[in-house]
Amino acid sequence: MILLTNDDGIRAPGLRALYESIKEVDEVCVVAPETEMSAVGHAITLSDPLRVKEIMKNGGFFGYAVSGTPADCVKIALKAILRKKPDMVLSGINQGANVGTNVIYSGTVSAATEGTILGIPSIAISLDSFVDTDFSAAAAFAKRLVSQIRKRAFPKGTLLNVNVPSVPADQIQGVEIVPQGKSRVVETFDKRVDPRQHTYYWQAGEMVIMEEDEGTDCWALRHKKISITPIHFDLTDYGNMDLIRGWEIGA
Amino acid sequence: MILLTNDDGIRAPGLRALYESIKEVDEVCVVAPETEMSAVGHAITLSDPLRVKEIMKNGGFFGYAVSGTPADCVKIALKAILRKKPDMVLSGINQGANVGTNVIYSGTVSAATEGTILGIPSIAISLDSFVDTDFSAAAAFAKRLVSQIRKRAFPKGTLLNVNVPSVPADQIQGVEIVPQGKSRVVETFDKRVDPRQHTYYWQAGEMVIMEEDEGTDCWALRHKKISITPIHFDLTDYGNMDLIRGWEIGA
Repeated sequence: MILLTNDDGIRAPGLRALYESIKEVDEVCVVAPETEMSAVGHAITLSDPLRVKEIMKNGGFFGYAVSGTPADCVKIALKAILRKKPDMVLSGINQGANVGTNVIYSGTVSAATEGTILGIPSIAISLDSFVDTDFSAAAAFAKRLVSQIRKRAFPKGTLLNVNVPSVPADQIQGVEIVPQGKSRVVETFDKRVDPRQHTYYWQAGEMVIMEEDEGTDCWALRHKKISITPIHFDLTDYGNMDLIRGWEIGA
Repeated sequence: MILLTNDDGIRAPGLRALYESIKEVDEVCVVAPETEMSAVGHAITLSDPLRVKEIMKNGGFFGYAVSGTPADCVKIALKAILRKKPDMVLSGINQGANVGTNVIYSGTVSAATEGTILGIPSIAISLDSFVDTDFSAAAAFAKRLVSQIRKRAFPKGTLLNVNVPSVPADQIQGVEIVPQGKSRVVETFDKRVDPRQHTYYWQAGEMVIMEEDEGTDCWALRHKKISITPIHFDLTDYGNMDLIRGWEIGA
């Protein structure tokens, strides 16, 4: 059984496209946020209670909506909702790419990270477009990837972060296994004044491509290739440990 | 000038202790969440406006409270609030350790990560206790670390995740530069029924020490040592890239 989740919310078309594609080849269950949870990063909900609702679609049961984050959804699915442990977690299909430094803000990736922590092969999948609603190429690739994973030894402690270019399936220029790039959204704050004369700010920004991004996830998407990046959650920068050992900070 | 922030909120005693200690040696500014933001991970606020309030303490200006996450605070401090770019970011002193797998949920660490992304030497500092309110040893160590960093080349793309054991300063058994461990909170969901007969869940859990944690951040704290872990935000699992290249997933 494959657990499907996302960060765009249980009613998002990307999740529906993933559901329709994967249920052709496997048993699926959906546990996803009740509302959009973009850019929540790896947040979990500790100070509020979580509620779970059954969601119907086309007259049948579709899945469980949780009043929490993507990471909450994976945790509560395994620990409180599902009777049987899923053997794969698929998170997506996200509306918008999750590449470069921006991966750290991604709720889509955080759900797959949570699956990995809980010992389940996990995949995050995103479509590189905020406007395109044709998820068919990404959904078809997800199905192919699931079939391949069923035949392979999935690496422990790792998830796959998959990004699909927003072009018709026959224009995709291949699949690349690439590292996370350094491109990122450079943020701006739009300062405004509300009708009560109080100041507030909207956070915005745009993706800035860094030159050193040759051969990365960002580069692959720009060249109409599907990118796959294995991601782990050991954040240690091993290369800099000795440098800091040389500092005079002994207690 | 050093930017101080945290995830326990601008009124937290750990932030106050850090402020009192660091202002003895450097110019400081405080931009911190208005309310507690624990376990928000690397969330940023895109769908709501951010508001900024000036906070007074003991009759003087203390800092800016932001209606957002720790990562929001660092971004808005640099892009909209402060007239001068800080040359260091200190996040803490958090109430509770940020070690092992749990680092991925940490708002304290996410603020330091944001400083690093913006090119500023950044440190997250946490006290290994949810009840102890004596932040003096941690505050003194932060001051010593800041002085040392002023004399050293700080590694690019890296932050320091510092955890201080909850013992008096003279009982601390040294400082260790160690990798992030694998210990983590194993969650449970406490199912309850509200007065309207609706089900809800509280997410809880307890830290489980994994055997392979010898020589890690978790191990250092258990041995009354201060742990320092250099952390980066390239999440790529380079060791598993070739394995996946062997799969039959070419488009």
